[in-house]
Amino acid sequence: MNVAFATVQQHARMLENLDRWIDVAVEYAKGKSFDPNVFVQARLAPDQYAFVRQVQAACDSAKFLAARLAGKDPPKHPDTEQSIDELHARIRNVVAYLKTFREEDFAGADTRVVPLTFRPGKGMLGADYLFEMQTPNFFFHVTTAYAILRQNGVGLGKVNYIGSLTLRDV
Amino acid sequence: MNVAFATVQQHARMLENLDRWIDVAVEYAKGKSFDPNVFVQARLAPDQYAFVRQVQAACDSAKFLAARLAGKDPPKHPDTEQSIDELHARIRNVVAYLKTFREEDFAGADTRVVPLTFRPGKGMLGADYLFEMQTPNFFFHVTTAYAILRQNGVGLGKVNYIGSLTLRDV
Repeated sequence: MNVAFATVQQHARMLENLDRWIDVAVEYAKGKSFDPNVFVQARLAPDQYAFVRQVQAACDSAKFLAARLAGKDPPKHPDTEQSIDELHARIRNVVAYLKTFREEDFAGADTRVVPLTFRPGKGMLGADYLFEMQTPNFFFHVTTAYAILRQNGVGLGKVNYIGSLTLRDV
Repeated sequence: MNVAFATVQQHARMLENLDRWIDVAVEYAKGKSFDPNVFVQARLAPDQYAFVRQVQAACDSAKFLAARLAGKDPPKHPDTEQSIDELHARIRNVVAYLKTFREEDFAGADTRVVPLTFRPGKGMLGADYLFEMQTPNFFFHVTTAYAILRQNGVGLGKVNYIGSLTLRDV
């Protein structure tokens, strides 16, 4: 099993779940007759990122993980989203990018050294980058986005968070 | 690389981070002269788990991942914690349990079939159990615990969330 490939697939699946949570939020807003774009600027604490920035950061985290571990240049996204529709587009754009990767793109990813842009001269081994930084960071933003909707009354539960499972008989 | 072993180490590290966020919360409470045990019942939404249950669920998620993928019986924890001190003890107990595992305990974990107690007759392949269910579930509870403290004014940031990184020169 290639850990990087499995993780990129995991992040794509979670972004698809996030995309569906936004649909549930839009339905909730319709039912209460308020503008669903209110969610875009909602936040849990005044000095924490708003929903829009949580979604952008989740997308970026997944995008950089895939690109860096495959030794490719990621596409640029300028963080200009201001509406629910634009957030849907951002998520779907990044999911499509993640789905362009094949398992062989990540050959040797565990031992590839990934430079850190915020720490000039420093980098991390691919496996450390994945387990210590990018996966926790990705789930941080996805879960905080979920929590913002949840706290605003949107009817989401763990089943929505986890999404579908590949079951087998035992 | 053994994915199950690396993931169990990742979860142990995140639980150690959670243990330190609680220390920061206790210092914050002291500075404002309120009882830090108030955090135990804090929650983001009235129909979401309180802090105590988020911590218990994070501990259980990591414990079950390690035990199920190694084919062992996990220790039982009856969820009786009512104070910050008891939450510290629960976390440290589970971290110590996670640290008893060695890489060879997880030989063949990817293809081991893990029965699901909440879906009688159904189970998941070890790799699916790890990537689709347990890792998202673990980070859900850890991040929600963090968000509860953060929303209550505790001075935490991404550096506290991620913890230490294994850097190397590039």
